[in-house]
Amino acid sequence: MSVTSTNPDTGERRELDLAETTTEGVAALAARASDASSAYAGLPLDRREALLRAMADELEADADALVASARFETALPEARLRGELARTAFQFRFFAEVVRDGAFLAASIDEATDSPMGPLPDLRRVKVPLGPVAVFGSSNFPFAFSVPGGDTASALAAGCAVLIKAHPAHPATSAACFAALERAAARHGAPEGLLGLVFGLDAGTALVEAPEVAAVGFTGSLGAGRALWALANAREVPIPFYGELGSANPLVVTAAAARERSRAIGEGVAASVALGAGQFCTKPGLIFVPTGADGDELVEALGAHLGRDGAVTLLSEGIAENFRRGARALEVDGGASVLVAGQPGQAAHAAARLLEVDAARFAREEALHAECFGPLALVVRYGGPDDLFAALEAAEPALTFTVHAAEADPDAAALVALGARRAGRVLVNGYPTGVGVSWSMHHGGPWPATTAAWATSVGAAAIERWLRPVTYQAVPEGLLPAALRDANPLGIVRRVNGRLEPGA
Amino acid sequence: MSVTSTNPDTGERRELDLAETTTEGVAALAARASDASSAYAGLPLDRREALLRAMADELEADADALVASARFETALPEARLRGELARTAFQFRFFAEVVRDGAFLAASIDEATDSPMGPLPDLRRVKVPLGPVAVFGSSNFPFAFSVPGGDTASALAAGCAVLIKAHPAHPATSAACFAALERAAARHGAPEGLLGLVFGLDAGTALVEAPEVAAVGFTGSLGAGRALWALANAREVPIPFYGELGSANPLVVTAAAARERSRAIGEGVAASVALGAGQFCTKPGLIFVPTGADGDELVEALGAHLGRDGAVTLLSEGIAENFRRGARALEVDGGASVLVAGQPGQAAHAAARLLEVDAARFAREEALHAECFGPLALVVRYGGPDDLFAALEAAEPALTFTVHAAEADPDAAALVALGARRAGRVLVNGYPTGVGVSWSMHHGGPWPATTAAWATSVGAAAIERWLRPVTYQAVPEGLLPAALRDANPLGIVRRVNGRLEPGA
Repeated sequence: MSVTSTNPDTGERRELDLAETTTEGVAALAARASDASSAYAGLPLDRREALLRAMADELEADADALVASARFETALPEARLRGELARTAFQFRFFAEVVRDGAFLAASIDEATDSPMGPLPDLRRVKVPLGPVAVFGSSNFPFAFSVPGGDTASALAAGCAVLIKAHPAHPATSAACFAALERAAARHGAPEGLLGLVFGLDAGTALVEAPEVAAVGFTGSLGAGRALWALANAREVPIPFYGELGSANPLVVTAAAARERSRAIGEGVAASVALGAGQFCTKPGLIFVPTGADGDELVEALGAHLGRDGAVTLLSEGIAENFRRGARALEVDGGASVLVAGQPGQAAHAAARLLEVDAARFAREEALHAECFGPLALVVRYGGPDDLFAALEAAEPALTFTVHAAEADPDAAALVALGARRAGRVLVNGYPTGVGVSWSMHHGGPWPATTAAWATSVGAAAIERWLRPVTYQAVPEGLLPAALRDANPLGIVRRVNGRLEPGA
Repeated sequence: MSVTSTNPDTGERRELDLAETTTEGVAALAARASDASSAYAGLPLDRREALLRAMADELEADADALVASARFETALPEARLRGELARTAFQFRFFAEVVRDGAFLAASIDEATDSPMGPLPDLRRVKVPLGPVAVFGSSNFPFAFSVPGGDTASALAAGCAVLIKAHPAHPATSAACFAALERAAARHGAPEGLLGLVFGLDAGTALVEAPEVAAVGFTGSLGAGRALWALANAREVPIPFYGELGSANPLVVTAAAARERSRAIGEGVAASVALGAGQFCTKPGLIFVPTGADGDELVEALGAHLGRDGAVTLLSEGIAENFRRGARALEVDGGASVLVAGQPGQAAHAAARLLEVDAARFAREEALHAECFGPLALVVRYGGPDDLFAALEAAEPALTFTVHAAEADPDAAALVALGARRAGRVLVNGYPTGVGVSWSMHHGGPWPATTAAWATSVGAAAIERWLRPVTYQAVPEGLLPAALRDANPLGIVRRVNGRLEPGA
């Protein structure tokens, strides 16, 4: 079957010179990736680093063409796409730094010793790459969470080959990004077959089931993510599945904060909800606001700002349909009242919606707990702390949890503690939309926000998903990997006899 | 149903003043553990450290009674049990060191900055405990991998409550160990319900299904482990299941090594196979030996030493039955020939067996790849490197992989590389039986050796299984956990703006 590019804004379709990948095609790519992965894992780390930097360069070299392609396929604004591509290139360079740093190897050396339990042999641990990683690109970030996204960059940094399933909403952009990465790989003499790209639903399934594939990185919906996760677990040899499945991202405004700056928070929330037409997995979808005049004012400001945008174009007709269906479920099944609603829109078009419900109803209505991907927020009005905390406990665990509090706010500490228990990132007086690429970022959270709460898909620690430790016992110096040799030729941080020793 | 203690050597049974835990009993323990886990997670780290040390002290205080109880229930020799108890106490003190060290918190601080992508907020990451952990004790280590074992110690070190399923082969020892741990907890004012102990198969199932339980640590058989793993994944909220399921642990003798010291290796392998009557998950079960005179000599020495022991008592009648069944499967289904076989034994008694097969048959017969828990090894005779590597690739991934090589051995590097690809620990010229507790130990391996290749059940990194990261974004100093405050009050190693800063 051939592959088609659609402009969600105009509905214009372009037949591409691409076909859905057959099962045999996937098998061939997986076999090639297995050999390539072994060869690549054996290259010196500075080769890996150079490859990642070259990929950043090649993406930047193609910026105009990539942005134009993504404009057509996503209807996202040019400035946003240029920013996202810059972030994507930055991410490759960042992972080159992570490789150079070397702490991800978790190198540890215990020299032979006499312990109270008798003699202990020389033990040296290092982390090794898992092998080929399957990456499922997202709909909402054609660059940063797709073909050249964080899963790809972190898996390459870990020393793994990467097989990518292109998202059907932007196949041309996927192919163009892939060409840029392949150019960098060829230029750097990377093993052939280190990268692979597949198209089509069945190819995605075949990828998860391919015996050579050692792990999966996925960014997308709860439904698709859970199905592929189950598939990964049903294999003869199950493999880790790192799914980032999105969430409703509670944002709580305390009574004191509402008293202090209701308007500013209302406007800030509106901007955070509307950013990228609400198509962020970190969009604050649940806004907990006190009842009473301060809260009313906040909700009014939020509604006024959210309603200003008029019609927006979502990423695809399918996403727009899901958005309309999700909004209806909140209103009809959940009983939320509608505060702001533009024209419902057709095809990929939609208008922002603001819904409201009281905390008691929220706590008991499961239909109100689902994420609605797109420009929609549900305001939950609470009377007092008991009301609020019961509703927050009823909400699903999330990627982010935001608290707007006043100085010396009596509720702040308990809310931050609750957030740390039920989310992967806790913010105070900020807005969760967007995820910075840095050493300390954690983009993850308890189930069902992700399928593996210990893992992150953004930030330096994203590399940890593609590694496993190996300990060498009494292995002679000449047979040890470089990271574990006495002289520390890589100059990396290592734990030696229990004490951390800084690198070069 | 009441709980019974059985002496595997004599068959003597003792009714204990213990009952199998009801489903309601498990639910009550889990609810209590959830509250206790939260309270415990909030205690300062030095309280955790002191509790772990107190547990070591209390276990040592009861050493005579604990060893006597374990003697009756396991038929293991007293010296072995005393050694194991000492290792178990050491393990608690070791995890106290790991807590004090603080690197397990993976604290990282990125101060607010202007990046090429625009301003980045202040981001601070730390790891937090998951909540109550269910621990399934093993049959073969009544102390070190049971109630007071590494899973319990590492979960407590991580800040989690622990609910333990006692192994039915040593219920009295489990109860006695639990009493010692409870005494330490009471002495240190630990939150009530921090520890729980359950008996019975159904109680184990209920534990994995309890909504409050956040993760499972398991040491045991492939069958039981896979079943519980599936249960953990089938929950409404799936939880991580860390199963250490044992393996056949290949040990390869190169042609050069056999030429150099066939007798010494044969005797060494025999000792490693026979240790603890072969009831170690790290027992070398597959011995790859070259054909020809050197290999013949090695096998002869191995057989002579293995046959000397006569009848041994296994841990339980059930284990002895499985041992006899496993040996039969290798011989009848797999077509292995018997080199050494004492009387088959009755009840819990058995005699060591040595089997042999050629590499080509091993490579094609799946029946030969299963672990046989107990005093048995399968010698695989190979003609040359091709023969050897094909057979090694056919063997299941394992916890350990051992190479016996000569100096400047032409085959050593390829074998070590293969071992690192297919096992969690690679040894050269040593024997894999036994696992030291240290910073660099990795006791794990690719599926089916474990259910999570990234995780270890022994060594400092065992703590990582019970933690997940949380990032605090722009959270005011007063609301941050101690590990992330500017002044580093815990004195732990942290990454600050990308650079590792040593602790106090």
